[in-house]
Amino acid sequence: MYGNDRIYKKVEIIGVAAGSIEAAIETALVKAQTSLDKLSWFEVQEIRGHIGPDGKVAEYQVVLKVSFELKG
Amino acid sequence: MYGNDRIYKKVEIIGVAAGSIEAAIETALVKAQTSLDKLSWFEVQEIRGHIGPDGKVAEYQVVLKVSFELKG
Amino acid sequence: MYGNDRIYKKVEIIGVAAGSIEAAIETALVKAQTSLDKLSWFEVQEIRGHIGPDGKVAEYQVVLKVSFELKG
Amino acid sequence: MYGNDRIYKKVEIIGVAAGSIEAAIETALVKAQTSLDKLSWFEVQEIRGHIGPDGKVAEYQVVLKVSFELKG
Amino acid sequence: MYGNDRIYKKVEIIGVAAGSIEAAIETALVKAQTSLDKLSWFEVQEIRGHIGPDGKVAEYQVVLKVSFELKG
Amino acid sequence: MYGNDRIYKKVEIIGVAAGSIEAAIETALVKAQTSLDKLSWFEVQEIRGHIGPDGKVAEYQVVLKVSFELKG
Amino acid sequence: MYGNDRIYKKVEIIGVAAGSIEAAIETALVKAQTSLDKLSWFEVQEIRGHIGPDGKVAEYQVVLKVSFELKG
Amino acid sequence: MYGNDRIYKKVEIIGVAAGSIEAAIETALVKAQTSLDKLSWFEVQEIRGHIGPDGKVAEYQVVLKVSFELKG
Amino acid sequence: MYGNDRIYKKVEIIGVAAGSIEAAIETALVKAQTSLDKLSWFEVQEIRGHIGPDGKVAEYQVVLKVSFELKG
Amino acid sequence: MYGNDRIYKKVEIIGVAAGSIEAAIETALVKAQTSLDKLSWFEVQEIRGHIGPDGKVAEYQVVLKVSFELKG
Amino acid sequence: MYGNDRIYKKVEIIGVAAGSIEAAIETALVKAQTSLDKLSWFEVQEIRGHIGPDGKVAEYQVVLKVSFELKG
Amino acid sequence: MYGNDRIYKKVEIIGVAAGSIEAAIETALVKAQTSLDKLSWFEVQEIRGHIGPDGKVAEYQVVLKVSFELKG
Repeated sequence: MYGNDRIYKKVEIIGVAAGSIEAAIETALVKAQTSLDKLSWFEVQEIRGHIGPDGKVAEYQVVLKVSFELKG
Repeated sequence: MYGNDRIYKKVEIIGVAAGSIEAAIETALVKAQTSLDKLSWFEVQEIRGHIGPDGKVAEYQVVLKVSFELKG
Repeated sequence: MYGNDRIYKKVEIIGVAAGSIEAAIETALVKAQTSLDKLSWFEVQEIRGHIGPDGKVAEYQVVLKVSFELKG
Repeated sequence: MYGNDRIYKKVEIIGVAAGSIEAAIETALVKAQTSLDKLSWFEVQEIRGHIGPDGKVAEYQVVLKVSFELKG
Repeated sequence: MYGNDRIYKKVEIIGVAAGSIEAAIETALVKAQTSLDKLSWFEVQEIRGHIGPDGKVAEYQVVLKVSFELKG
Repeated sequence: MYGNDRIYKKVEIIGVAAGSIEAAIETALVKAQTSLDKLSWFEVQEIRGHIGPDGKVAEYQVVLKVSFELKG
Repeated sequence: MYGNDRIYKKVEIIGVAAGSIEAAIETALVKAQTSLDKLSWFEVQEIRGHIGPDGKVAEYQVVLKVSFELKG
Repeated sequence: MYGNDRIYKKVEIIGVAAGSIEAAIETALVKAQTSLDKLSWFEVQEIRGHIGPDGKVAEYQVVLKVSFELKG
Repeated sequence: MYGNDRIYKKVEIIGVAAGSIEAAIETALVKAQTSLDKLSWFEVQEIRGHIGPDGKVAEYQVVLKVSFELKG
Repeated sequence: MYGNDRIYKKVEIIGVAAGSIEAAIETALVKAQTSLDKLSWFEVQEIRGHIGPDGKVAEYQVVLKVSFELKG
Repeated sequence: MYGNDRIYKKVEIIGVAAGSIEAAIETALVKAQTSLDKLSWFEVQEIRGHIGPDGKVAEYQVVLKVSFELKG
Repeated sequence: MYGNDRIYKKVEIIGVAAGSIEAAIETALVKAQTSLDKLSWFEVQEIRGHIGPDGKVAEYQVVLKVSFELKG
């Protein structure tokens, strides 16, 4: 496969989930599937979150870049 | 609302207007609305501009990331 | 043209080609044309590549941002 | 004054206002005064904002570092 | 709420815990509560850790910025 | 014009003015004209300012890169 | 111990594991031990991953810098 | 000590002294002691200075982050 | 030569040429010679370009820093 | 292969060659092979060069990170 | 003085000296005076150096930005 | 020498010494010599330090990249 001309697109998304950083990443990937092509890899850009009234993490927000091949 | 699984998309756009940095941002948001979903927030990435023959700012060019929720 | 309100979109793509950095850029531009509007300019974000079993560059992978005007 | 031993503290604050970037900066400075010492200078770190239901800027949020001398 | 003049403060803290990155974040938030106002959100700046004599992670150290509204 | 060999120079300047960020940029451009060639575009590098004894912005200081073609 | 002349070396490695970010870090540390001296601490540089045909995370890839004292 | 839950705070200060970079760092640390808890370590963020009418360094200004444990 | 007090100046220029990245660099160096002292080395800051109506690279624009010794 | 625990090492090298950026990259890869394991991929960190007495590029110097799997 | 319209220029220079980082900075400032206007302040961008055949520092090379007011 | 194909390696080390930043750099270079080839130049990446119980600098820790030619 290496060596053939091809092109990928990178799209920036934010996954949000209550449980963990990994849960936020999985949420992003599952939901991105309905509107994007088959994803190949991801890169974490930022990890942030909201803090609830009890002072604990209410949710993790993970900014990702996801990439997929543009078939022509 | 916090704590529910959800996903946002970030898109990079450049707004251009003659009057001020804020005018360039407003231009970007108004025009982006015709092709993107309801926008939630923006982040300024770069502020630049073109200089006219009179040596004054001919236009401000503001690079923004705008984000909106992807409903599934 | 300068001074008129307008908006551009920036999209991140990766061009891949065996021969050179310029070939990878050209591949990205040619293939991007089938799914994006008329492109105006590009900015190189990253230059990377895969190394073949012979220890030579098997392909160049160039991450680009390409920009085009959003007509309204 | 230059050449004398002294120390400054830098604190990071976010000013929010509806009208303009400058209004958000002024809001931050005025309100910071009630809890911080006399401020000497500021540096803008980030410019962002919230977008209202009408698709316009609902408010500007400007992240600043403000500095002041620690008298001792 | 959006559109009203207000100010937030960002403070940089490091949470340390043995079990996971999330545990280090939760430790930071719980302990920060005794000396800071009600926190609204956090941003991860750095993830690092100490390695024990057995070559495993002895603890995770997560550098965070936490933000809270300054009521005036 | 595109496609012809040519060269531009980028110079870093700081414009200072009391009223607004845009005023500081305009000040820089007007004054730079007496010692530099005809300027083509600018890029904002940093926005900072001095705070007066009344706790308000005494002046905006905007660090810019300005570019112009070197005719040969 | 502080205050004595000494030297550390930093090496960049990538740990890969299917389960979680922490699993990828632990994999890197365990495997690095066979070829490097006793490690003291690590710093996460990048978090990325591969996405499987089912659209879920197939593996986490964590780029780390690990440091150890060079005994002389 | 490693492995116990704990929290540190990072504060940004600027030390100023005429003689050398090290003198500016020492000034910052000595003066910070009167208003901050027992400091553990520092990280240099920026080195700058003022130039006197004789064209020599009038003072060094070193921006530092200093860290200390928050006992709870 | 090493060890003698001396001073270099760094200047930022942009070379433009149609053929390749290397052609744009060479253009910059050749044209810079008419207005700058004998150049010693260069560092690439940015690689960008304009895209023609045919969707191909119309020209490469390479931002460089070039350095030369200031003889006194 | 994806999903199996494994580890890679990243090493920073500089390739130097007279002809082109690609020639400098190939030089680095060929020469690195005599002292490093089988390389998998590379990432360009910096592109720089020396300028000869004739004002032309005497050589390209390309700083790369190269990566290879550490077999255990 | 604050609040008056004015403009500064920033120039990048490299000072080289054998003895110390401060000596390299002083060398840069003294020599820059013969070709630049009265300097106001400096910012250190990079600290590097050459290593002699005896394995010790042969010289420090400090990259600085120096700033001065452009009188009109 | 310029223009010949060759390759350098960059290694990241941390020098620690009590007296000054320069002492930490010299410590790193002297000790690195026992395990690395003849070093050509260094670049400072970070300056940090430990603070003793008396509130003074107990030691400087300087992170360096050192480079040397890989002879083939």
